[in-house]
Amino acid sequence: MSIITLTTDYGLKDHFVGALKGKIVSEFKDATVIDISHYIDPFNIAEAAYIISSAYSSFPKGTVHLIGIDIELNRENHHIAMQWNDQYFICADNGILSILIQKILPQKLVAINIHDRFPSDATDLDIFVKVACHLAKGGLLNVIGKEIKNIKEVTEIKAIVQDNQIRGFVIYIDHFGNVVTNISKQLFLEVSKSRPYEVLFKRQTIKTILPKYSDVCSTEKYPLKYYEGERLAIFNEAGFLEIAIFRSNPETVGSASSLLGLSYRDIVIVDFKN
Amino acid sequence: MSIITLTTDYGLKDHFVGALKGKIVSEFKDATVIDISHYIDPFNIAEAAYIISSAYSSFPKGTVHLIGIDIELNRENHHIAMQWNDQYFICADNGILSILIQKILPQKLVAINIHDRFPSDATDLDIFVKVACHLAKGGLLNVIGKEIKNIKEVTEIKAIVQDNQIRGFVIYIDHFGNVVTNISKQLFLEVSKSRPYEVLFKRQTIKTILPKYSDVCSTEKYPLKYYEGERLAIFNEAGFLEIAIFRSNPETVGSASSLLGLSYRDIVIVDFKN
Amino acid sequence: MSIITLTTDYGLKDHFVGALKGKIVSEFKDATVIDISHYIDPFNIAEAAYIISSAYSSFPKGTVHLIGIDIELNRENHHIAMQWNDQYFICADNGILSILIQKILPQKLVAINIHDRFPSDATDLDIFVKVACHLAKGGLLNVIGKEIKNIKEVTEIKAIVQDNQIRGFVIYIDHFGNVVTNISKQLFLEVSKSRPYEVLFKRQTIKTILPKYSDVCSTEKYPLKYYEGERLAIFNEAGFLEIAIFRSNPETVGSASSLLGLSYRDIVIVDFKN
Repeated sequence: MSIITLTTDYGLKDHFVGALKGKIVSEFKDATVIDISHYIDPFNIAEAAYIISSAYSSFPKGTVHLIGIDIELNRENHHIAMQWNDQYFICADNGILSILIQKILPQKLVAINIHDRFPSDATDLDIFVKVACHLAKGGLLNVIGKEIKNIKEVTEIKAIVQDNQIRGFVIYIDHFGNVVTNISKQLFLEVSKSRPYEVLFKRQTIKTILPKYSDVCSTEKYPLKYYEGERLAIFNEAGFLEIAIFRSNPETVGSASSLLGLSYRDIVIVDFKN
Repeated sequence: MSIITLTTDYGLKDHFVGALKGKIVSEFKDATVIDISHYIDPFNIAEAAYIISSAYSSFPKGTVHLIGIDIELNRENHHIAMQWNDQYFICADNGILSILIQKILPQKLVAINIHDRFPSDATDLDIFVKVACHLAKGGLLNVIGKEIKNIKEVTEIKAIVQDNQIRGFVIYIDHFGNVVTNISKQLFLEVSKSRPYEVLFKRQTIKTILPKYSDVCSTEKYPLKYYEGERLAIFNEAGFLEIAIFRSNPETVGSASSLLGLSYRDIVIVDFKN
Repeated sequence: MSIITLTTDYGLKDHFVGALKGKIVSEFKDATVIDISHYIDPFNIAEAAYIISSAYSSFPKGTVHLIGIDIELNRENHHIAMQWNDQYFICADNGILSILIQKILPQKLVAINIHDRFPSDATDLDIFVKVACHLAKGGLLNVIGKEIKNIKEVTEIKAIVQDNQIRGFVIYIDHFGNVVTNISKQLFLEVSKSRPYEVLFKRQTIKTILPKYSDVCSTEKYPLKYYEGERLAIFNEAGFLEIAIFRSNPETVGSASSLLGLSYRDIVIVDFKN
């Protein structure tokens, strides 16, 4: 099985994504191509980092992730490929892999160096397609790049531990208007040591992080419908602290983002008592 | 051929749909995965019911339909699987299958009961993926669930026959802004007995339900362009009465919904003369 | 490899695209189906023509392009199929193929004539699916249509050469808000003869058409970030003159369209000095 996933900021109206898939099947007809997202906010590295770090674990070993965000080759922007956790990632060296490499060190990192083998009218995407198909066919990183030691990190993505607090912020607002922070369950467990805590944001407090959304229904006296619109905190399936509204709908009743006034970059704190 | 279709309210910006497909190909690499819609209005059971009932007939026997709308397992919400018309449907027991089972009785219904075979951090979607792949590989319903007799129905989806009228309402507004009602062609034919009729809504009247959109062009004297913006009634390809505007565009000239003032749940009546 | 691409104005919320794919795999289970776009502006022939002409070159020989825009069969609208540049195109005879046939003459053109072989409740899309699968399996055009000599052209898509100017207009605004004109690189090179030129629009002037976006960063003294928001002109990867903003985002900082006031159909001129 040879899977190539796509994560871009190209949107789905233009021909870009279709053309990209055409190039891939032209190069490697048996590739299985899976879209992760084409609606990354344009040039938003932090958002792409969150989406990639949330998606990879659902894919099998050997999967190749092509990330098409801000890939024009220039003096600041180099093309890299990484083997990590037995999967492959191809992107510009712009910080998109930051969340991943904070968790686990790369198995191998290369700067792609095959550009001079292409005709002069080849695009940056042509390079990425060639590399993705090469890796998906089982090719080696050494053949398409030169090993490097470091890549760019977007350090401001990390939550900070200070005194008795984890201080994070909103990194993503999802389709349901739920607000995702950069506070991971792993960090929470490390810092918590089973102490009581409160989640603080915008002068509001939530006292419990729930195991699942419908646990907001604290008693069985009422039907679940009764609790629609209640706010809650949860570690989402990607492992990050999320502030949510039970059964929200941004188009009608509102969402965590709209109802609680939480926007991208707003601060969220977990405050531990000792 | 092993087809798994996906119908969800996850949207396409988040990583959810990509991750779902990654889980499916990890479990069953030869599955053909086809998106029906990921833009169901969040938690809107009636809309999901309409979309599923409109789509299934285009798929071959043995197709497995995974429906990811409000699937969190809890005291009100059980996981079910249904064999119906030689296809399979996996969803929460929340009424989404109502339109289907009004037409044809299920061949088999089970309550999924394999949850305790999963690790504690498995998600509800992991259960659905396992069941979908099992069925797509030709597995039996008995292996993954316990037979049940009844499932939840959303009865308010049905149009009502009263005196000389079929009284329905708007259940869906499509991409072109055309307004779909819950009045089926089948019901119309049963009640009609070839009597004359009028379609009534918002103090407006349409006297004929047309065989196709361009039949609104009543004479060949003028080019079709001349009729753009004309309102019409038609049974759409899903078999439901639709109020439409000829060649509408919601972004520019307007649509049936915007021009005729028709919204979700608004009443539409077919009034028969006798 | 048997590729069928889809370009429609159906959107992705409704069941239409999923149902279309269901019909295709029912007819030809080994087809590889690739979406080009389902967000063509409803009934917008010029936009569809641009998208198709930008996408085809990324696909291998033998690819079948199914174009579902305004396909209802009626006295003005016939169904055609074209072999062109070793690929196949199926659409209504409404001008969508104009840009293609301006570049290269068709290898073969047929009016589809198999409608009477279908049941009376077959849709126009059923015809298209049958033809697409027939061609994707390697079938001949003669079997499904009668050869014709001419098809409809939307001539207003062409840029005009007058005196020392190429006079074009905006034909497309892409996902990044960049503004695409109907002035092709090929026409520019034919007319230019290496003379100096200016790109004129809305009382503004751009003096150079750049080889790539980041060439807007005219000196290496500053980081690229410094140039965000700068306007530029470029021939895009589809070969058309584009007015762009460096790293634009229509949702936040604005785009060429919003910042420079350029809309669909606005005039853009290349003025040559001699």
